[in-house]
This record gives sequence, C-alpha cells and structure tokens, in this order.
Amino acid sequence: MYKKMLMTPGPTPIPEKVNQRMAEGMIGHRSGDFSELMRRIKPKIKDVFGTKDDVAILSSSGTSSLEAAMVNLAAKDENVVVIVSGAFGARFEAIAKTYPYNVHTYEVEWGEAADPADFKDFLNSLDDVKVVVSQACETSTAVLHPVTELGEIVKDYDEEALFIVDGVSSVGGMKFNMAESKIDCLISGSQKALMLPPGLAFVAMNQNARQKMKDNDLPRFYLDLNQYFDSLDKDTTPFTPAVSLIQGLEAVLDSVAEEGLENVYDRHAKMRDMLRAGLRALDLELLVEDEYASPTVTAFKSTSDELSHIKDELKNNFGITIAGGQKHLKGQILRIGHMGYMFPSDIIVVLGALEGILSKYRQNDYYGKAIKEAQEVFFNDL
Amino acid sequence: MYKKMLMTPGPTPIPEKVNQRMAEGMIGHRSGDFSELMRRIKPKIKDVFGTKDDVAILSSSGTSSLEAAMVNLAAKDENVVVIVSGAFGARFEAIAKTYPYNVHTYEVEWGEAADPADFKDFLNSLDDVKVVVSQACETSTAVLHPVTELGEIVKDYDEEALFIVDGVSSVGGMKFNMAESKIDCLISGSQKALMLPPGLAFVAMNQNARQKMKDNDLPRFYLDLNQYFDSLDKDTTPFTPAVSLIQGLEAVLDSVAEEGLENVYDRHAKMRDMLRAGLRALDLELLVEDEYASPTVTAFKSTSDELSHIKDELKNNFGITIAGGQKHLKGQILRIGHMGYMFPSDIIVVLGALEGILSKYRQNDYYGKAIKEAQEVFFNDL
Repeated sequence: MYKKMLMTPGPTPIPEKVNQRMAEGMIGHRSGDFSELMRRIKPKIKDVFGTKDDVAILSSSGTSSLEAAMVNLAAKDENVVVIVSGAFGARFEAIAKTYPYNVHTYEVEWGEAADPADFKDFLNSLDDVKVVVSQACETSTAVLHPVTELGEIVKDYDEEALFIVDGVSSVGGMKFNMAESKIDCLISGSQKALMLPPGLAFVAMNQNARQKMKDNDLPRFYLDLNQYFDSLDKDTTPFTPAVSLIQGLEAVLDSVAEEGLENVYDRHAKMRDMLRAGLRALDLELLVEDEYASPTVTAFKSTSDELSHIKDELKNNFGITIAGGQKHLKGQILRIGHMGYMFPSDIIVVLGALEGILSKYRQNDYYGKAIKEAQEVFFNDL
Repeated sequence: MYKKMLMTPGPTPIPEKVNQRMAEGMIGHRSGDFSELMRRIKPKIKDVFGTKDDVAILSSSGTSSLEAAMVNLAAKDENVVVIVSGAFGARFEAIAKTYPYNVHTYEVEWGEAADPADFKDFLNSLDDVKVVVSQACETSTAVLHPVTELGEIVKDYDEEALFIVDGVSSVGGMKFNMAESKIDCLISGSQKALMLPPGLAFVAMNQNARQKMKDNDLPRFYLDLNQYFDSLDKDTTPFTPAVSLIQGLEAVLDSVAEEGLENVYDRHAKMRDMLRAGLRALDLELLVEDEYASPTVTAFKSTSDELSHIKDELKNNFGITIAGGQKHLKGQILRIGHMGYMFPSDIIVVLGALEGILSKYRQNDYYGKAIKEAQEVFFNDL
C-alpha cells in the first residue's frame, strides 16, 4: 500500500475539509441558501484574483474560460495577438482561429518566457491590435511570463487594447494585481492552485473590458459573460451552477484566508525553490531559468529513457503521480506540480524518492543530497 | 432540527455512496486510472439513454448541452423548429435565435403537451426544415410531450430532418429508446434523475447526426462535439473533465444497474401516481392531465396566497424544499420534484405535511386523506 500523491500540474489534491463541504448536502440553486453562499464568496474570490471587480464563475473547465474571454472581448474582424510558448498558448491560438478574427501569433521557444523588448517590436509591427492574450504560467513548460512588463507594453501600444491573461495554473499560487499589471481580464480554473476538482472556470474582468463586451455581437449563449456578471449582481448564476463545487470553493477561500494569502504565495515560492535546488543536486537539467520559473510547476529534462523510468518508478513504487511533456516536449521533460494543497514536506518526499531511483538507475550515490539542498532552502529562509 | 428534504425538480439529493465516491481522491485526468473509469462508464450510460451509440460527457450544465446540440447539428441559415411549452423551451428558442438560423417557434399552452396532429400541420406548413427540437419533460410545467409521436411526424416530414430532444429532467427517470422514438440527439444534465450535483451535461447522438455535425462550420470550440466523440473513442475527454463528478457518475450508473432500469422507471411512475392521487385528495388542481404527466415532477395550482403559504410552511416547519412556477407561471403553481434518489416514502412524508398545512390553513380536515390515496396506489400495485 502506498500513500498516493498526485503531483501533476492539475488536477491537484483536494483538502479533506473541502471534500466534506462538497458532500454536505445538495441545495437548490435558486434558493436563499445558494444566494447567501454566493454573497459570501464574492468578496473573497476578488482577493485571490487581485481585483476590486467581480469574478464570474462558470460551471465548466478552464478551456471554456479561455474561449469565453476571447469571444466576449474580441469582436468580429479584430486583430488579436496570441503569445504561444507551449500547449496552452497553442490552445488559445486554436480558439482564436475558430472565430472570425485576424490572429497574429507571437511564437516563443517552448521553455522560454516572452522577451519584452522583442514582443514590443512584434506588437509595434502590427496595426490596430485590439486584444493581446498570454498565459501567466504556461503549464506545459512551467514558464512564468513577465506579465506586468507585457501589460505595460500592451497599454503603451494602445491604451484601449485589452490584455487577457490565462491564470489557470497560477491564480491562487502567486500574487496578482490586475490593475498594477494592467490586466483587463484574468481567467482561471478550479483544479489547480484553487484545490478543487475540475469543473469551475473563473473570469475576472475590469469595467473597461465589461463595457466593450456589451457591444460584442458574436453569437454565444452559455459563454455569454454578460449574463454571468448580470446574475452575479443578484447573487446568482444564469444557468444551473455546479453547486457542490461552489460549496467547496467557499471552504477553499476560507482556508486560504486563514493561512493568509501572502503565506500561501510564500509557500508556493518556497516549494519551487526547494524543488529546483534538489533537482539540480540530482544532476537534472531544469527546463526554465530561475528568473522565469513558476511557483506552481517545475519541469526538468533528461533522456527519454531516464524520464520514462523515473515516471514509472515514482508511480509504481512510491504512489507518486507526476506529468510528462506535452506535444513536442513529450519524452523530453517531466513536470512536477506543487500547487494548492501541497507542502514543503511533499517536496522532501518526492526528492527522497528521486534520490533512490536515480542512485540505482545511474549507479551513483545521491542519497541525502537533494533533500539536503531543499532543507537548506527551507531552513535558511525561516 | 429538521431532516432536510430537497424536492425540487433539480438539483436533487445525492446518495451517500455517490458522495463518498466523489470524495475518494482526485486522479489525474490524463492517467490510466481515468481512462479505465471512462471505459467502464461508456457502455453503462448508453443503457440509460436508450442507445447503442456513444454518449458524450461535457463538464458544464444542462443548458450547454442544449446549445451544443443546436450549434453542432443546425448549420448556418437552416430552418429550425423549436417547440416551446415552458421556460426551457423558451431557453432553447433563445439559444436558437442567438445563432444564424431561421427559427420557427411552435407555441404550446404552458401546462399542455404538443398536440401531434396540430404540430404536423404546423411542420407541413414550413419548407425545408432541417432540425426540430423539443423537451421530453418540460421541467417548468411538468408536462411530458408525446416524443415518439413527434419523432414519427418529423421523419414523415423529411427522413433527413434531425430530431433533438431535451431529456434534462427525464433521462434516468423514464425509459428512452432513441431509435424507436426516432430521436437523433438526446441531451441531459447530471443534477436531476441522475442523482449527481450539477456540472455534467450529456449528449447522445446517432451516426446520422454525427455525420452531419462533421460538416457544420459554425464557430465553436468548447462545445464542439466532434472533439468529445473523437476523444471518447480513446476513453478520454478533449478538455479537463469534472473528474469528481465523473467518479460519482460511475457510482450512480452502478446503483441504477443494481436496482434494474425497469425498476427505477417503475419507481418514478409510482411516485408520480401516488403524488397525484394525494394532491387530488387535498383538493389541489393538477396543472397537467394524466396522459401527459411526467414521472419526475408534478405541478399543482392554487391561489397565489395559498401557494406561498404552502411553500414557506414546508420549508420552515418541515425542512422540505419544493419549487415555484417560472416566468408567467410564477405565483400560479408549485412544483414537487420526485426524481433520482427519491422514494415512495418521501411522497408519503410530503403529503403528510401538506395535509397538516392545508387542514390548518383552510380550517378543513385533511388528516390521513392524501396519504390514504397514495397508499392505495402503492399497495394496489404490489
């Protein structure tokens, strides 16, 4: 028997309290109980998204919020720039290309972050761009883009252009301040740093974006965000919401407030730093440089054979599930998620397992070495 | 303290086993464990939808499956007929009018079922209709439309026209046979007779419909059902699925198979008959005639004051939540849901409460009278 550990970059483990809350009993979604639940959630979720504006809650997965942001904020025939640095940027591009837009793709080497100066040149080479979209953390490569610098560039280019940021694998695991970073729309999903099962999507939007959305006549119904924000004013939802997940969401928001948001973010940064120090001690090459390393997921490279051995051994002998690479990074990297209901002790455990696996596989002595590096990061900081 | 009873026509109570299964622990949605879960679910869910074809599972609420059916099966500029006999027909009409279709609304008095002969005349008065949509049970009025007769009429009109049926409040509570009823596409949601929290939507589709869908070039991404069926062939989903709800779905399907589908349907029909007999004994007028009464929800009329008193008393003094009317039926009817994890004993309890409430309110003696009628239905049938 193994204690199972889900260390993928989403879905992530669910705290027991959250599971209990979700099993507390179904309530009618048009009842006073549900309105009160929404009323309690509304202010708390704003803090997590770093905004004073409302955050719409959709009952669907993260991809739907990418599409919703797009189809509500970009109008027909507009010029849209999509930053693509991995599988989720590519998905955003595919969504954009589904609709009647002029899509301009800004390609970034997978594993690298968008270079602000270069992006600025790219943007300035285009006329009349109305919408720019980027990941904050590109989940497939574990890169954190310099969102605040990008936001600055977008608004320098045109104060009216809208900046949409995909925070699916970052909201809840790092600090956002939408106004400071000049983000008009920040989206996310429930199953990553927010410690819930998949099934909820979130869209935070400033008033500027909401204003533009009202005049957008692209056909959409379930993803028409006007309806969600209008309903939110009345503490309800336009369509039957995923009640149990929203019950769980309140437990998550309470738990996050109890720990303190800054402490939550520090915990994530510390897990990243511990893990990176440990992986280096195991002679594993990190995909992303320190400056752009996400606090929520870490990717490392090795030979395809070694990666496959590591992944299987972790799963079969230690009950630890981690993720492989996606698309052309398949077989080239492994990814360890460290967001949501995860702790420095989990990093110690996975590093301990890796020490043993690699000591045997490479016939080298790694015992204690990765853990020692991680401990130093942990204790030096206290 | 009251034992809370949720007797709305959705969401409905969740069986303890299903809650436990949903809290069993998160699994990666790209893991072998999840593929195996999907592989086990696939054949079982077909039985509930009465089809040999695949049933797509979307992570979103029922409305999204209405929209998905529409936007995948009706192409640009096509003639679409929507049968509207209540709030959900009206929603289907609103969805249809969002897209570039020629929408023809067949209006039915709320509380009545579509009349086959009249509908046939209506359909024959139109040229080149490609898609017809109807509710099976219109949740807002508790009417069951004569779906098989409607299907016959659609195919008599044009063998190639597609018949889409909204089974949100009926699938799982009554028998469907898609081929026999000539239904090309049957949709549903998780939160009604399927005993799950809201958050999953289902689309069953025959090969004819799937073929047409492939050529439809209306823009859609999250609701592109081609992607769902293609992924289903590989035991997976195109986007991150609501894992915990799908874990729960397996528990539901196992429980339904254990009871036996025919027994499940008989239980629903019996609850309807018991409740209707009891309500009549309370001198409450039923909104729907026997012939078109749904096995999953029952509506009754009274004065606005009496209805409001009944609803409040049930909630405040008995912990029983039932639903009011929607749109122009607000204040004119109440609706009692009896689908999913509900039993004849629940009908006895709600009737007992109603006897007391009305005995006092009307200063009349109803004690035992409604229950007796319900018992007779129950025991006569054994």
